[in-house]
Amino acid sequence: MTWDSPRFPVVECTLTEAQTAVLKCISPLAGEKVPVSEALFYQNSTPLLAALPKPPFDQSIRDGFALSKTPHVVNDGRATFQVIGEIAAGCTNPGKLQPGEAVSIMTGAMVPPGCVQVVPFEVCLEEDESVSMSLENLQNKQTFIQTKGSEVKEGKVLVNAGVCLLPEHLLMLAENGCREITVSRKPDVAVICTGSELVGTGTMPGAGQKISGNGVFLPGLIQAENAGCSWSVTVADEVELIVKSINSTLARKPDMILSTGGMGPGKFDLMEQVFARLGGRVVYNRLCVRPGKFTLFGTVYDTPFFALPGPPPAVRLLFYELVAPALGALQGKSQVVAPLVTASLENTLSVKNTGHLSLKGAVVRLTDNRLRVRPAGRMEPINSIIYLQGERRTAEYGDNVQVRLLGGLQGLAM
Amino acid sequence: MTWDSPRFPVVECTLTEAQTAVLKCISPLAGEKVPVSEALFYQNSTPLLAALPKPPFDQSIRDGFALSKTPHVVNDGRATFQVIGEIAAGCTNPGKLQPGEAVSIMTGAMVPPGCVQVVPFEVCLEEDESVSMSLENLQNKQTFIQTKGSEVKEGKVLVNAGVCLLPEHLLMLAENGCREITVSRKPDVAVICTGSELVGTGTMPGAGQKISGNGVFLPGLIQAENAGCSWSVTVADEVELIVKSINSTLARKPDMILSTGGMGPGKFDLMEQVFARLGGRVVYNRLCVRPGKFTLFGTVYDTPFFALPGPPPAVRLLFYELVAPALGALQGKSQVVAPLVTASLENTLSVKNTGHLSLKGAVVRLTDNRLRVRPAGRMEPINSIIYLQGERRTAEYGDNVQVRLLGGLQGLAM
Repeated sequence: MTWDSPRFPVVECTLTEAQTAVLKCISPLAGEKVPVSEALFYQNSTPLLAALPKPPFDQSIRDGFALSKTPHVVNDGRATFQVIGEIAAGCTNPGKLQPGEAVSIMTGAMVPPGCVQVVPFEVCLEEDESVSMSLENLQNKQTFIQTKGSEVKEGKVLVNAGVCLLPEHLLMLAENGCREITVSRKPDVAVICTGSELVGTGTMPGAGQKISGNGVFLPGLIQAENAGCSWSVTVADEVELIVKSINSTLARKPDMILSTGGMGPGKFDLMEQVFARLGGRVVYNRLCVRPGKFTLFGTVYDTPFFALPGPPPAVRLLFYELVAPALGALQGKSQVVAPLVTASLENTLSVKNTGHLSLKGAVVRLTDNRLRVRPAGRMEPINSIIYLQGERRTAEYGDNVQVRLLGGLQGLAM
Repeated sequence: MTWDSPRFPVVECTLTEAQTAVLKCISPLAGEKVPVSEALFYQNSTPLLAALPKPPFDQSIRDGFALSKTPHVVNDGRATFQVIGEIAAGCTNPGKLQPGEAVSIMTGAMVPPGCVQVVPFEVCLEEDESVSMSLENLQNKQTFIQTKGSEVKEGKVLVNAGVCLLPEHLLMLAENGCREITVSRKPDVAVICTGSELVGTGTMPGAGQKISGNGVFLPGLIQAENAGCSWSVTVADEVELIVKSINSTLARKPDMILSTGGMGPGKFDLMEQVFARLGGRVVYNRLCVRPGKFTLFGTVYDTPFFALPGPPPAVRLLFYELVAPALGALQGKSQVVAPLVTASLENTLSVKNTGHLSLKGAVVRLTDNRLRVRPAGRMEPINSIIYLQGERRTAEYGDNVQVRLLGGLQGLAM
């Protein structure tokens, strides 16, 4: 616990290398069965097939008359049928039409055996117990019958594996007879905020103390990725205390651990020592990214572990670039890192350091059918990240810059 | 309950008139207190003020030496101070610096009384119990001290009322000492799917029967708007049964009721009769919108009530245009209807009816910094709605069309 305590050899990588290396350490969580009605925003683990055809029977798509093949009478350019009854939607036994017969039928009802077409009410004339229509309407090519399975055949793949299930998916699954589906369990993430100056959100800070914002910020970021955080604690800058805290956290078997603070070249930057004490395996401990130079990813007893810096603006960027893709992969998502898009800069932007990738939290909006972007205020919610590569020191108003759009683009069009 | 039962006089309106009329009937729900850590995605009811300044004390923003005003010795272009100790972050009693004294200090630690500046470690030379630095570094204008409240003053408005609380808001609120905040209660919506052919999702459909997709689809759409659906039932097309079902639903005191089916000119389109039997007050019962001609909005014992059509593609569009803004208003959201934006059409699009607004569920994507849109497949998840106004019968590839972007634009950049 001294200034010169041995640390891990430096393993430095670029952001893309880090993303790849992290994803290599992540295996999708086991699936669990949930009823379709509770599957919103889960990822399905297996392809989902139609258990029933759609429609499940030959159905009428108009309120009208279901007709047999041969009219009862043809006279003066009109065909007449004898009306034998009515088939409402939901009728389970529609009988059988004999030649010359018709039956009144509702949209969505099963057409009876012997029926060759439906003619809408609007073009029918009903009198006593018969119905007539012009031969022209009778010879309409459209039958107004939707045949069983014409929209979806039984066994058709409705949703591929690894899709975030949206309301439309639930609709399709329900309509096609899926009752229970296998989805990825939601990852449970543990958060450990290190810093002797920090107190939890329930506590009033004394002199020299601060409330741990990350202890609330990270659980919020985690929840917004459809994962959960059942454990968020604050620990002082002491190796023994942090090791003890992580050991009790591991006993809870989280799917991932995030720590904040304690990363850097300073005397109280203890996370590498802690990680060594825990027998952790380092995947990287330096990034060619600003912010984020001193961050670590590795595993402790096979649990993925991100040691993030302390300042929330850096936490946020590294969360979106590295942690969120890992959470997606744990849930079996098929594409976890969104491709970059181009946007036009609305402000001048300068960065101090060059020679490595600089990330800036940003706000994109659409105006005149163009995507425009500006750096966000210090703690303004962001919906995107600006990428400034290599030697680029400033970018001017109107320049095109590379941008990663983040998941929920609240307010994009506002 | 006959074909010719009296219905309500026709009250027809445009989509914009309908949106305005609906919002006039909606009052924000009462607020409830929740801890900041549980407030994600709620709307706050009142402006939220900083309870503490940020930073809460004068703090060092570098690892370095906190210096008193006067050096102990100045010699050969260098100033020397006597080092009297160390202030770690979280130190609650940093003592007081006398002239000539310095104290080693960590980033985020409270600077002691008597300190006028911090000089970073990198430019300091520490020897025995003293530290020295060049006069140039001493005379640096930057003090590396961030004064109490310089980022956020106590009492400053952190978040205006009616904002959907994102992780960044929770961070700011936590850091600035807010523990509990008043948020709008999440609306509870009841769903009643009418149709004698329908069975619930738990049931295997018999001959002529179908599974009620809306009974799962609508709860999903409702949840995605940060509201809840604790009641979703299926009822046959019989006035008495529907009235009974709505009466038991009303006893649960939902904040809103949605029904599907039973709207139109047909014999089994019973919702207007049901609504009359319940003593409902009609706000509109026709829309100059396709789909959506036969839909009704009104109130039953002051509970907002939407009678939607049956087909899910129509349900979805009317949900986003009318129900979702109403759910936003119940939660006290300040802007509930997103403005339209322009997008370039990727397909040719034709609509049958003209003379009124046509809505098409659509998928937008960004390519080459332009927003492009195409009509969605029948049950493909949509992230936007295309508006075709008035007499416009077709729109061609490359045409600009008006589009409403929906809340979570999943996959916009994919």
